[in-house]
Amino acid sequence: MSDDKVRRASVGLGRWARVLGRGAQRSDKVELYSCFSRDPEKRAKFAEEFGVPHQASSYENLLADEAVEGVVVTTPNDTHKDVIIQALRAGKAVYTDKPIAHTMEDAGEIARAAAAAGVPFAVGHSARRLGGHRAMKQWIDDGRLGRVSLAEANFSNERGLELTTDTWRFFADKSPGGALIQLGVHHADNLQYLLGPVAAVSSHARKLYTKAEVPDAIMSILEFESGPLGYLGTGWASPGVYQLRLQGTEANLFYDLDFNNWDESHLADSKSTLVSQAYRQSVRPPVEIPHTDMFREQLDEFALAIRGEAKIEVGALEAIRALAVVHAALESSARHGTAVEIAPMVDKAGAIT
Amino acid sequence: MSDDKVRRASVGLGRWARVLGRGAQRSDKVELYSCFSRDPEKRAKFAEEFGVPHQASSYENLLADEAVEGVVVTTPNDTHKDVIIQALRAGKAVYTDKPIAHTMEDAGEIARAAAAAGVPFAVGHSARRLGGHRAMKQWIDDGRLGRVSLAEANFSNERGLELTTDTWRFFADKSPGGALIQLGVHHADNLQYLLGPVAAVSSHARKLYTKAEVPDAIMSILEFESGPLGYLGTGWASPGVYQLRLQGTEANLFYDLDFNNWDESHLADSKSTLVSQAYRQSVRPPVEIPHTDMFREQLDEFALAIRGEAKIEVGALEAIRALAVVHAALESSARHGTAVEIAPMVDKAGAIT
Repeated sequence: MSDDKVRRASVGLGRWARVLGRGAQRSDKVELYSCFSRDPEKRAKFAEEFGVPHQASSYENLLADEAVEGVVVTTPNDTHKDVIIQALRAGKAVYTDKPIAHTMEDAGEIARAAAAAGVPFAVGHSARRLGGHRAMKQWIDDGRLGRVSLAEANFSNERGLELTTDTWRFFADKSPGGALIQLGVHHADNLQYLLGPVAAVSSHARKLYTKAEVPDAIMSILEFESGPLGYLGTGWASPGVYQLRLQGTEANLFYDLDFNNWDESHLADSKSTLVSQAYRQSVRPPVEIPHTDMFREQLDEFALAIRGEAKIEVGALEAIRALAVVHAALESSARHGTAVEIAPMVDKAGAIT
Repeated sequence: MSDDKVRRASVGLGRWARVLGRGAQRSDKVELYSCFSRDPEKRAKFAEEFGVPHQASSYENLLADEAVEGVVVTTPNDTHKDVIIQALRAGKAVYTDKPIAHTMEDAGEIARAAAAAGVPFAVGHSARRLGGHRAMKQWIDDGRLGRVSLAEANFSNERGLELTTDTWRFFADKSPGGALIQLGVHHADNLQYLLGPVAAVSSHARKLYTKAEVPDAIMSILEFESGPLGYLGTGWASPGVYQLRLQGTEANLFYDLDFNNWDESHLADSKSTLVSQAYRQSVRPPVEIPHTDMFREQLDEFALAIRGEAKIEVGALEAIRALAVVHAALESSARHGTAVEIAPMVDKAGAIT
């Protein structure tokens, strides 16, 4: 990569833009060049906090700026389609926060637009880059787990107890699935990263204690094409949990991350534990976790891809597979847990074409 | 209770009879008075190891001995019905290892015979007596968890990889459900002890790596009548796992037991960890686990009940509710995860009449 940094623009300047902004500040490959939000005050505040030299007065103006090489989208889920496609059509590479969109239809349109534009398109399923998940993948690839039979994951926090109508996350049409599309979708990607594509999902979703329109307790069983069974638990009505466990014929692995360090991704590994357990043993010695910085690395990859020096790890297809788990779960829940197949949903979204 | 110990007889003198024999040796309420196995050598060995004064030459002779007050049944699951009903009809109190039987039909017949006999009948779902589970129940009852939304449990070990045709556990007609009826049924009771009756079960069962006829990987979602969702994972193809987690609006609890200390139940609590996590906190301070001895306590309770000085905690109804989770799971798995209701199965077994 040449010395000049990739000039990126941020659109949607809420909490997550700031988390990614801090990730970009830790990078030597990316420059925060421009930004846009409908709210001029938010815009000015963001530009000041991150020393962004340009504030676009409209999204059209931001996209018209030829210096902008990539757009980082952190607008609400239900706006992704329009915001992303507009950028792609302007020839800009796009990085969007997960999920790729709130519906499979929107996700399919985005995937087709990205393919047509022929520019890098990345979706922020950063969690698979956590050191613990990278180590787990290595153990699987090295055969140290033997053959995996059960995989269990949980991502929960207390957000559902605090939601008000001021946020789009409150509403079922903007964020269908509640905790599942906001938190669980991370593990939908992690589990498929580790064990390959999910074939079908059986699920029950409940709105128990939240005032929002969306479920705050969702449990799903994932049938993997490769044979194992997966469990995905996600809640929005308890203290924070982030765990993933794998049970294999040779060993088990247990991963536990302190959720409160999620936003500061360069610290996340140091606030995690990964332990192993060998056949016939009960001791669980710690496994060394490689140091990662998921947000910085994902933004670096995006920058390098723009310059043709890297491949995007999580693009439209991977993101559609993660979103399909969410929508298959909601459909299954409406059908009393009956397994819903993933492949037709992925095919229909057109990602594989 | 008077000074003289309750005279119990053991039938079925395999590994589990010896585990319970050691539990009885720690008791001051029970005397190992007689024993029977079809195999005279096994009988003599058991009598010698535990200093049992009488060895019955037939089961009929054992039951004809008026000095015998209670029979402890540890024969294979599929023989429970005949062995138990014969003892009940002879007017003996019966303690049987879990599950109550291998089929709902047999369980129902046993329940009706126990009700007709009017003598104490206990089923060895001892796990709920573990200190960790007792503490969790106390937290729920005290309101310290707030309202529970998610409960996750896993009980797994490597047994399925080692099964041969020499053992009844190998065969689907003798032990339907494999790991689920042998291990998972414990958590089916624990979870209902903690959260009340299960309304319905969605499940997927797989025979992945075992040579036996039965599944070695089973995942189930339990819908509780009280609202929460439960997950029950159980495997027979990995190193041992025994865990139960509860997520509530005020706190989470995480329980982990070293499976290798299961048999020596007076040591189990000291090889367990229970930690809590409060709202908005990421630290997980340990919770003190009360000291228990599940096998001894269950046998003591049985002895006291024979003398009219205690109530049986786990009788036919509780055991049928646990077994119903197993059979509902197997039926659900055959129906692609569609939820199967528990109440009709429990009613049909006749336990509530």
